[in-house]
Amino acid sequence: MNHEPLLIGLDAGGTSTRALVTDRHGRCLGYGVGGRGNPISAGPERAADGVLDAIAQALAHSGRSLSEASVVVAAMAGMRATGDHGWLRDRLVTQGFDGALVFEADLLATYFSGAADTFGYALVSGTGACVVRVQNGIIDGTGDGLGWLVGDRGSGFWIGHAIARAAVQDLDHTGPRTTLTDGVLARYGLQRTDVRQFGRSEELEQLVGLLYGHPPIELAGLAPLAFEDSDAVALGILTEAGEHLADTLSAVLTGPGPLVIGGSVVARTGPVRDAFLARLGTAADGLELRPVSDGAVGAAMLAVRAAGGAADDVILARLTETLAAFR
Amino acid sequence: MNHEPLLIGLDAGGTSTRALVTDRHGRCLGYGVGGRGNPISAGPERAADGVLDAIAQALAHSGRSLSEASVVVAAMAGMRATGDHGWLRDRLVTQGFDGALVFEADLLATYFSGAADTFGYALVSGTGACVVRVQNGIIDGTGDGLGWLVGDRGSGFWIGHAIARAAVQDLDHTGPRTTLTDGVLARYGLQRTDVRQFGRSEELEQLVGLLYGHPPIELAGLAPLAFEDSDAVALGILTEAGEHLADTLSAVLTGPGPLVIGGSVVARTGPVRDAFLARLGTAADGLELRPVSDGAVGAAMLAVRAAGGAADDVILARLTETLAAFR
Repeated sequence: MNHEPLLIGLDAGGTSTRALVTDRHGRCLGYGVGGRGNPISAGPERAADGVLDAIAQALAHSGRSLSEASVVVAAMAGMRATGDHGWLRDRLVTQGFDGALVFEADLLATYFSGAADTFGYALVSGTGACVVRVQNGIIDGTGDGLGWLVGDRGSGFWIGHAIARAAVQDLDHTGPRTTLTDGVLARYGLQRTDVRQFGRSEELEQLVGLLYGHPPIELAGLAPLAFEDSDAVALGILTEAGEHLADTLSAVLTGPGPLVIGGSVVARTGPVRDAFLARLGTAADGLELRPVSDGAVGAAMLAVRAAGGAADDVILARLTETLAAFR
Repeated sequence: MNHEPLLIGLDAGGTSTRALVTDRHGRCLGYGVGGRGNPISAGPERAADGVLDAIAQALAHSGRSLSEASVVVAAMAGMRATGDHGWLRDRLVTQGFDGALVFEADLLATYFSGAADTFGYALVSGTGACVVRVQNGIIDGTGDGLGWLVGDRGSGFWIGHAIARAAVQDLDHTGPRTTLTDGVLARYGLQRTDVRQFGRSEELEQLVGLLYGHPPIELAGLAPLAFEDSDAVALGILTEAGEHLADTLSAVLTGPGPLVIGGSVVARTGPVRDAFLARLGTAADGLELRPVSDGAVGAAMLAVRAAGGAADDVILARLTETLAAFR
């Protein structure tokens, strides 16, 4: 029986939570997935449920208990500043945990999922978009991550919003025709018609009514349409998204280093990635792009570091390899 | 005592409602202002209150009663299609009205506030933005008016949103410095500081928190900042607004005619108007720009027309002149 203390890394997001149980040698001993884990968006009780479910699953794999864990690192957006960690600490303590609970930025976990270097960058473009510069192992520069209303340029929301506007302008004859319109209409169960009233098509009135009937953030769900069906309008949207992300990165770029890529927008090759690299120009030469699926490995790296271990390339490689058996 | 039937024109908006009492000769006999008059945004009861208050004030001026009115024309956004007019009809009938109640588009009332020609255009850019083409006295072409999320390009909301994004990008160092930032910070009771956390200023975090704490449409309230304090960034925003409005107009432009201008964005001379005309190029030569303050006169013109009168240049001039004594 292994009596070395357990280390737990949590990558807690707005949709799901990942927990990775490891030790100071970086062996993945268990892995679990739970529900929504961010108390800001999901509420503290539901977020704690999501986190505890993920931990329970991961511990079940390892055959160990929470009382054997010395460190839990919880990587999530927006929790560093608040200082109010009772919503999670109390639940962990109830289950026997008496170690250190540390909160870290989700972007730092993304970074350490792809790099062990103390200097580098992470760029995440999923529903939102954010870039960080890491120096001496901590975040010392941030670009964007400012939400759908005034930021997140080049994100999935940004792309979906641009698609919705392109479809509406097509139907309004204030913008070019695009095959995106058919995809958007189909998504909302509508069809092109010849019915016009006051010089405006019926499907435009219906589409606009439906678009305003949902939370704006749901427009992110339209983003895949631009990747599936790239006419000139779609290509223009994807190109602009890539350029926005390059501009956001440029604002924190101070030298060469690894660039860890999270979220699906830049992770896949194609128009966004091409425009992103073209816009960076020669600055891209010093960057080593490393797509990662999420921040689970990085959260475990941060847990190793918090326990006084060396979160280096050997640990990163071992965590990545041994996790593979669990998912 | 004048026994000629009264005609009432209503210009009912999201913020306030205007009522103009006239007769078939186009003399303004009374004028009143009430509260919010659109049942879609204000709810039917509150909207009916706003409308009835405006009518009561206007009738008080004329010394006549609602039972003497043969026609009420209510010009407002989005009410033509619904067909459900009971929210207003019932309240009018209760007060003795037994004439015809007709709903018209707010943009048509704007148009007839500045022109009696059966062919022409109206462009409104206030909180929202919309353009219509009028042919044979009815709207036969519409551009934009599609709301803050997917339309209203060049509107007060659009300008305010661009200002908010410019300020946020300035503070985030992902955009150029602009004096707009100081105006936006002051509007939210914030100041520039040197406090930085994770490479981000404290006032940026605070500003973003405040921006997301209000309904997006309130960003329209920032629009005046761009007119007050025009550095290069502000000028760029105003120029782009003017170009968007020209593009929207171009989508319905089929020939020369009067162009009635509602809302404050294009009504005032300056960068928006300049960019608007420059973008239209030679197409602007055939347009006669006529700023109007609202749709009250046009609603009265539509009431004269609904009563079988000739809503011509003579009536337009008389309504405009005789209304002046009331406001």
